[in-house]
Amino acid sequence: MKEILKVSAKSDPKAVAVATASVVRQCGEVELQAIGAGAVNQAVKSVAIARSYLISSGIELMLKPSFLDVELSEGTRTMIRMLAVGVAE
Amino acid sequence: MKEILKVSAKSDPKAVAVATASVVRQCGEVELQAIGAGAVNQAVKSVAIARSYLISSGIELMLKPSFLDVELSEGTRTMIRMLAVGVAE
Repeated sequence: MKEILKVSAKSDPKAVAVATASVVRQCGEVELQAIGAGAVNQAVKSVAIARSYLISSGIELMLKPSFLDVELSEGTRTMIRMLAVGVAE
Repeated sequence: MKEILKVSAKSDPKAVAVATASVVRQCGEVELQAIGAGAVNQAVKSVAIARSYLISSGIELMLKPSFLDVELSEGTRTMIRMLAVGVAE
């Protein structure tokens, strides 16, 4: 099953980067989910940091972003899903 | 020379997606540059849309985000660079 990391505007990019790199090392990929500009920004920063962690292990991290409409208590929101895939260099 | 698209918080993601897909079809890759959460969000949305355009041509679009410190009139800001690379499926 695909691991999912939910990222918010208040998430610490370094902490998310550590988790991202750890799951990618184990499973090859991880999905980051973010709703709103602040959360998407933190998720992208996390992946930029995780890339620097993984590159020293010969793993190139690539992102595949896509949309998903989700139903929340405040109505329908569009979530950005970013599948982070580790590729051996 | 690598083509660069500068994305702002006010950029129209569909227009940026059309430009992204066009450059990737011609050159194989394009760099999206964004400063600030709003701009990063628009850039990621643009790539998610461009992915849907390119997938029908058998091109998988992947993002490689990284940081770059830039000197602006208001001081040093951290730019997010996202290299969007088209990979034949």
